[in-house]
Formats: sequence, structure tokens, C-alpha cells
Amino acid sequence: MESQNKHTWKTKLHEIIYEADTPAGKLFDVILLIVIIASIVLVMLESVDSIDKNYHNILISSEWIITILFSLEYIARVITVKKPIKYITSFYGIIDLLSTIPMYLSFFFVSSGSFVAFRALRLLRVFRILKLTRYIGASTQFVRALKTSRAKIAVFLSFVIILCIILGTVMYLVESEKGSGFTSIPRSVYWAIVTLTTVGYGDIAPATPLGQFIASIIMIMGYGIIAVPTGIVSSEMTKANRDNVPTNTQSCLNCLASNHRDDSQFCHKCGHELHHD
Amino acid sequence: MESQNKHTWKTKLHEIIYEADTPAGKLFDVILLIVIIASIVLVMLESVDSIDKNYHNILISSEWIITILFSLEYIARVITVKKPIKYITSFYGIIDLLSTIPMYLSFFFVSSGSFVAFRALRLLRVFRILKLTRYIGASTQFVRALKTSRAKIAVFLSFVIILCIILGTVMYLVESEKGSGFTSIPRSVYWAIVTLTTVGYGDIAPATPLGQFIASIIMIMGYGIIAVPTGIVSSEMTKANRDNVPTNTQSCLNCLASNHRDDSQFCHKCGHELHHD
Amino acid sequence: MESQNKHTWKTKLHEIIYEADTPAGKLFDVILLIVIIASIVLVMLESVDSIDKNYHNILISSEWIITILFSLEYIARVITVKKPIKYITSFYGIIDLLSTIPMYLSFFFVSSGSFVAFRALRLLRVFRILKLTRYIGASTQFVRALKTSRAKIAVFLSFVIILCIILGTVMYLVESEKGSGFTSIPRSVYWAIVTLTTVGYGDIAPATPLGQFIASIIMIMGYGIIAVPTGIVSSEMTKANRDNVPTNTQSCLNCLASNHRDDSQFCHKCGHELHHD
Amino acid sequence: MESQNKHTWKTKLHEIIYEADTPAGKLFDVILLIVIIASIVLVMLESVDSIDKNYHNILISSEWIITILFSLEYIARVITVKKPIKYITSFYGIIDLLSTIPMYLSFFFVSSGSFVAFRALRLLRVFRILKLTRYIGASTQFVRALKTSRAKIAVFLSFVIILCIILGTVMYLVESEKGSGFTSIPRSVYWAIVTLTTVGYGDIAPATPLGQFIASIIMIMGYGIIAVPTGIVSSEMTKANRDNVPTNTQSCLNCLASNHRDDSQFCHKCGHELHHD
Repeated sequence: MESQNKHTWKTKLHEIIYEADTPAGKLFDVILLIVIIASIVLVMLESVDSIDKNYHNILISSEWIITILFSLEYIARVITVKKPIKYITSFYGIIDLLSTIPMYLSFFFVSSGSFVAFRALRLLRVFRILKLTRYIGASTQFVRALKTSRAKIAVFLSFVIILCIILGTVMYLVESEKGSGFTSIPRSVYWAIVTLTTVGYGDIAPATPLGQFIASIIMIMGYGIIAVPTGIVSSEMTKANRDNVPTNTQSCLNCLASNHRDDSQFCHKCGHELHHD
Repeated sequence: MESQNKHTWKTKLHEIIYEADTPAGKLFDVILLIVIIASIVLVMLESVDSIDKNYHNILISSEWIITILFSLEYIARVITVKKPIKYITSFYGIIDLLSTIPMYLSFFFVSSGSFVAFRALRLLRVFRILKLTRYIGASTQFVRALKTSRAKIAVFLSFVIILCIILGTVMYLVESEKGSGFTSIPRSVYWAIVTLTTVGYGDIAPATPLGQFIASIIMIMGYGIIAVPTGIVSSEMTKANRDNVPTNTQSCLNCLASNHRDDSQFCHKCGHELHHD
Repeated sequence: MESQNKHTWKTKLHEIIYEADTPAGKLFDVILLIVIIASIVLVMLESVDSIDKNYHNILISSEWIITILFSLEYIARVITVKKPIKYITSFYGIIDLLSTIPMYLSFFFVSSGSFVAFRALRLLRVFRILKLTRYIGASTQFVRALKTSRAKIAVFLSFVIILCIILGTVMYLVESEKGSGFTSIPRSVYWAIVTLTTVGYGDIAPATPLGQFIASIIMIMGYGIIAVPTGIVSSEMTKANRDNVPTNTQSCLNCLASNHRDDSQFCHKCGHELHHD
Repeated sequence: MESQNKHTWKTKLHEIIYEADTPAGKLFDVILLIVIIASIVLVMLESVDSIDKNYHNILISSEWIITILFSLEYIARVITVKKPIKYITSFYGIIDLLSTIPMYLSFFFVSSGSFVAFRALRLLRVFRILKLTRYIGASTQFVRALKTSRAKIAVFLSFVIILCIILGTVMYLVESEKGSGFTSIPRSVYWAIVTLTTVGYGDIAPATPLGQFIASIIMIMGYGIIAVPTGIVSSEMTKANRDNVPTNTQSCLNCLASNHRDDSQFCHKCGHELHHD
């Protein structure tokens, strides 16, 4: 009877933590989202010297509170899930663990400058936000569109990289001895990427007329090339949208006309009744 | 009889101010648009030191003329509208009031440097231009397209922000001790946003080869990712365009079902014959 | 008989100059295109000090040759056209005249520094290239797509300008006293446009954390907003493409099925013969 | 018999080198791809002074190994192909030869600074990657979409170039005497391209209010104009997607007409009944 009771308690907690169709489950997700965002803001603020000096104690205290909250959540997840090993070894399980460890380790070791990389592990929690977005319907279509055009975008990006290598080398040959920043091929390729993607920092810029002429061609190419990934995704999404239009594959028994609206009860061609399943 | 006359006068003024289907109403809107743009240009010119020094009196006089014009318009709107309280507490009512107040207050208080923020309230009139665009048919479709893709664009932008936080942190870890401007995580995230959106100021730029390599990846990602919001809006607008084509506004004489396909000869709801013109 | 002969000669010249469906006419257009491009390159090279010093005489001689060629072309156009007044007062007639005058005037007046603006009139010939593109079929569809989406793009650009005025003013209030370049509202609006359009010069860049935060929002907005004009043009062109699909409006006499392929001789629904005009 | 054996051996090698439908052929292509990428990375690293100083011998040794591998591949291709002359004079044959020669020449001549341009010939191998992408299906559609919109994109880019020449000249007239970098028309046209394509280096930026006003207009134009190539490619790809859907590959038994609509029951050419599966 006690086991039964415990089981019920565990089931309820599981429902709250892992599902989102009860008010408690939704509330849990919203609170989790807020705590994650708060923890990310905290890590970011800690890295700002002026803030860290003035509010060091407040930041550390808040950090401990959040770390304990995440630890409790981690324990709750391990207890309530049916296959704890599977959760612990899963992507999100590892992230949940990794994001709590740095704080506990800082308890034993004195924090040093190079320790910051390790502390940044806490930022991995940001991936949890991605997981929470599964409840937003729009993201499904978004992810599907990305998946469908994945292969084409990969080909496109390979093409862009090859183009940047060629153009970067040409610019290196033209500008390398003019002291305008094109000191090596990798640096020139970096510049070609900065230019073709229309980012344009300006830390490296061509100084010779020939270099500026080639740069102009690269820019205009970049301006035209950007149309390609956009065209790919647009046509993919238009296609996905069209496939969703509420017509069915049923054909009229009388005149064989097909492509009826999903809510049709009679054939739009001959007026004969349609048979639905 | 006088009340009757007054009522007619108020109705006419209401027609001129609030509607745009009479020549007088259209003229009023065009004049209003010109005065709003003039007032915005005035506020902008006042903030330029060299212009303000040389033409201070002309600017202040023009400002008073425009403020009085707007005050008269405000009073006219309050008088002619049927429910004055509703107008006064509405978004445009508050803007209309807020944009006249600063000038009157400057009459009582001596203008100081920090007063400029308050005076900038007059720029709120720019929202009035948005209101006037309701007469342009194209803006309706524009707003509808934005509304439809709102959810998807929000998801997309959240994804971009999360990506920028991750990439900014990585760059902070790589470049923070190289003195190239990546002094804190928020600053690095700011840089990641500047780069991913292809803005590329160049005030912060990676100095290490590894940093430039990661930056190149971010740029190429940004170049590919920009296709997604474009694809969303394109497919949404293509869909809106297509949905507008093949249905007509006819309703069935038998069951009143509407939204029939243009080539339907029989109602898709009850099978009754449709009469075409 | 001489008049007859002269008339034939004029008709032939007219055919060569104004039409492009004879080999001579095509050759004339190609030569004209090359001469125009040569003249543009000349004007551009003249403005480069180092080139102008070393090759001044060659540049001036070439310029005279081209000016005489254009003058001959102008005279030929005036003579051969049926209504000379209409051509002289037309857009291209004025351009043709304006682009030859500066050189003749330089014969009478000694060239001075401020004279350069006048000489730049010769660059107006660039518009002639636009006229020559009428022979390229692709440009027709291009211009039509631009015309169709003109109203929507105008509304969109007005929206962008209003947004930039608001955002520029906000940045002016935040950054004006930090010495980071936001010295006046017009300058801040200029910066907002540079940022929202993802150009990002870097001559003005926010220095305060709050300014950088607002700048980040502007950039992400700009990244999302760019989808709108693209969506408008894409859907407009997709629609134009769809309307072009080779189906006709004919309906079958037997079964009333419509939307037949343009090359159909028999109804695709019932096999009845279709009657073409 | 020996000739027979040799022939078999050559056929097998031919299959491995030129085809990709056997496991050995696929393996060959993957290894080739890796070696090409390694050789490109090598050339890029050699151009970095600090790396070249410390690891000069390792780089040169690796370069020799790769050059010998490519030479062996070149010889194998010449031996196994049926028409060696055709391969040697083909685009890829010339690239394969050119990319091995520089290393052998460096054996005879002492490497000098200006020799670097010649050594960069080895980077031509990057084109081989493009050839290997023929196995990826996505690239076919990608190339076809580019080909279809080629003419329109050319017209668009010509329009952009003409626009940049006009705008660059205007900026030259406005800014040339203000010492803000607009020293000649070609330089101003270069700046106009940098701005219109939203690259925005910031090495040249307008200093006068009028210049900044014109620059703002250019930027907003660039922001709106970028929609055009995108719209062209999007609609082209959407069309390609749509045209692929509703026709089938069946041909009429009576008149052999093909490309029927998927819902056709009778041939649209001769009215003969179509047999569906």
C-alpha cells in the first residue's frame, strides 16, 4: 500500500516534469524556462568585470540558488523516469548534469582565470530552451522546412566555400604585397567570406584599384547568390503549404472527378453524393 | 434649430477629420501628413547643433505654429467625436496629446540639456503617419502577411538569439585574452548578433586564426539562415495569393454554403445546382 | 526621283538606328553599346588623378572622338525620325543632347575644378544602356514584377523609414552624451538606417551596454524585416508565372470541363473534340 | 592472352577511377576528395609566415607526397581512358596537369616571392571538388535553377551596376572635396557597390549631411532591391517544383503523345482513351 502510494506520487511528478498537458505541467515548464533564462543572464553578467566587482556576492548567491534548483530537478527527473540510465546517458541528461557540476567543483577548487571556460558549461542550459519550444506548433514546420532543404543548403554552402577559397587566393595574389591586410591565403579567404556574405567588417579592405574591382565583383556576386538559399527554402515551404491544402484523393463514383475539398459531401462536377470513410 | 445647425456643423467636421471619402476629407489627410512630416523634420533639425545655433528663432517659431495647429486638431477631434472619453484614452488620442504638451511646458520651464528626452515626445507624431496609411490598400495585405507569419518569425528569432548566445560564449572563450574587444560574454553575444545578421560594424573583430575560423562559420550560417524568414513570408504570401483565386463569393440557394470553387456546378455541401451569371 | 532616292536612304537609316530586327540594326546597337560603355569608362578614368596626369592627351582625344560619334548619331536620329520635335523633347533625346554638350563647352571655357559636375553629365549616357536592354526578353518580366509590387514596396519602405526615425531618436537619447558619434537625431537616424539595412559601416557604433542592447534588437529586426520585400516580390512573381501556364479558358461543349492545356484538341475529361478559334 | 589480361586490368582501373557505382569506385572518390582538401589546406598554411617558418620541412614533405599521388592519378587517368588526347585537352585534364607542375618546377628553380602566384596554381584542384559533387542529387536541381534564372539575374545585375555608376558619380560630386575618401569616380562607384550590396566596410563613409542622406537612400534601395533576385529564383524554383507534379510519363497508345495531366482519361491530342494501372 505504501509502494502503491509512492508509485502514485512518482507518476504525478513524472506527469508534471515530462508532460505539458496539465496545468501543473505547463506551470513547471514556464518556471523552468524563466530559471534557465535567469541562469544564462547570470553567467553573462559574471563575465562583465565592472558588474562582477560590485555585485560579486549577489551573483554568487543567485548562482548557488539556481544550481540547487537544477540539481533538485535533475534528481527528480532521475527518480521519476522509468529508465534512469537512458535519461542519464541522453543528450539532455548529460546537459542537465554538466550544467550543475561547475558550481560544485568551484567549491573545492579556487576559481582561476582559465576556470572560466569550465564555468561556461552552465550556458549549455540554453539547449533546454530549444527542447521547451516543442510545444510551439510553428517550430515543427520550421524544423521540417530546414530538414527538407538540408541537402540543398549543404551543397549551396560547399559551393560558397569553394568560391571563397578561389576568390581569397586571387585577392592574396593581387594585394599581398600592398600592406592592406591580405598577409596570407587563410586570411584572404576569411576576407572573401566576410565580403561575399555581405558582413563587411572593414578590418581588411582592398587598397589597390584592381583589388577594389575584384572586391566589387565579389560583392555583386554575393548580392545575387544570396537569392539561391532563399529560393530553395521558399519553394520548399510553398510546396509544403500546397500539399497541406484541404483536398482529398477521393474520386466521384459517378464522374470520376477527383481533387475534392475535404469538407465536400457532393461532387462539385456532377452533384453525385460522395462516400466518406 | 440652432442646436440642429450646430449638429450639422459638427457632423461635417467629423466627416472631414475622421473620414477620407470626401474631397475635403482627403485634403485634410494630405495637409495633416505634410504638417506631421514638417514637425518631425523640425525636431530632427533642432538636435543638430550648427543648425540650432543659426536658425534658433525660425525653428522655435515654426514649432509653435505646428504645436498650435496640432492643438486645434486635437480640440476639433475631441469636440466632433461621439465618445470623447474613448478617443482621449485611445492610443492615438494619447499620442496626439503627448505631442503637443512638451512645447507648452517649455513655456513655463527653462529648457535644459536633459529636457531633450521630453521634447522628443513630439516625434511620437510619426505614428500618425502609420494611421494615415490605412487608406493605401497595399498596407492591408502587408500587415496581414506579417500577422500570419508572426508566430513562425518569433520562433525563428528565438532560435537566432539562442544561437548568438552560444556562438558569443564560444568566441569569448577563444578571444577574451587576446585584447581584440571580446571583453565579456554580453559583448561577445553583441558581436555574434552583429556578425550573424551580416551587419558587421568592425568595432569588434576576431584577431586569432581560430577566432576568424569560427567567425567565418558564423557568417556562412548567417548567410544561409537568412533564407528561413524569407521562405516563411514568401510561402505565406504565395498561399494568400493562391487562396484568393479559385473560389467565388456565391452562396448556395438551398443551404447557403459559400466559398465554392469557381468551376463548381453543384454545391459541395448539399448537392443543389448552383446558378452562374 | 532624287527625293524618292533620298527617302529610301532615310528609311534605311531609320531602320538601322531605331529597329533591331535587321543584321545592320543589330550591329548598330552592339556598336552603340560598346561606344557608350567606352565613354563611361573614359569619364571615370578622367576623375582618377594619377591616370589623368599621365594619359591626359589620350583621354581627351578619345573623348573628342566619342563626342563626335554621339553628335553624328544625334544628327542622324533627328534627320531620320518622322517627328523630330517629339524625339528632341523626349527623355532620350534630351539625354543624347546633354551628353554631347559638355565637351563642346569645354572648348570655349577653360576647365576648372567645379566644372567637373557639368562634365559628369556625359555619364547620363548610361541611361541609353537601359534603353538597349529592351531587346532582352528577361527584362520585360523583371520590370513588370517591379511595377506590380511597386505599391507594396513603397508601403514597406515608408514603414522602414518611420521605424528608423523612432529607433534613431531612441538611440540619440541613450547615447548622445557618451561621445560615440550620436551627436544629433538626423545622424542617429542615419545610423539606424545603416544598421537596419545590415550595411553596418562602423563609423558610428554604440558604446554603452544599453545602446548595444538596443542595436542588437534593431539588427535582429532588420534581419527579420528583410524577408518582407522578398516575400512580396517572390509571391508576385510566382503568381505571374502561374498565370502564364499554358492553359486556356475554353470549356468542353460536352462536359463543360475547363482549364484545358493550350495544345489540347480533345477534352481530357470526356474525350469530346474541342473547337479552337 | 597477356594483352587480354592487361585489358581487363585497365578496364577495372577505369571503372574505379571514372565511375562511382562500385565500392572501390566510391572509395577512390572519397580518398580523392580527402587528398584534394588536404592539398588545399597545405597551400593555405604555407602562405602563413609563422606556420611556414616552424613547419617548413613537414609542409614541403607533405606537398611532395600529395604531388606524387596526383601525378600517379594523372598517369592512371591517361592510361585507362579510351581517348587520352580528349582527356588531356579537357578542362579537368588541364587542371590535373597544372596542379602537379608547380612542385616539379620548384625542384629546378629556387623559390622566390613572386613565384607564389605560380604555386597557387595548385589551388585549381578545388575545381575537382565541384566535379565530385555530381554524385549529390541536390546539386542537379541547384544548377538547373541557376541556369533557368541566369538571363534574369544577368539583367538584374546589369541594372545594379548601372545604378551604382549613377549613384557613385552623384556621391563623387557631393563629397569629393570634403576629404572623406571619395577621391575619384571609380572609387565612389566602388563605395556605391559596397553600400548597395549591404556589405558596408566603412573604409569610405560619407561625412557631409547631404552625403549621408543620399547614402541612406542608397541603403534603403539596396534593402528593397535585394528582393528582386530572390523573387526571381524563388518563383523559378516554385515553378520547377509545380511542373513536376501533375503530369505523368504515360504516352498515348494511339498517337504516342506524352506529358498528360495526371487526371486525364483521354489523350489530349487524339481523344483516344488512356489506360491507367
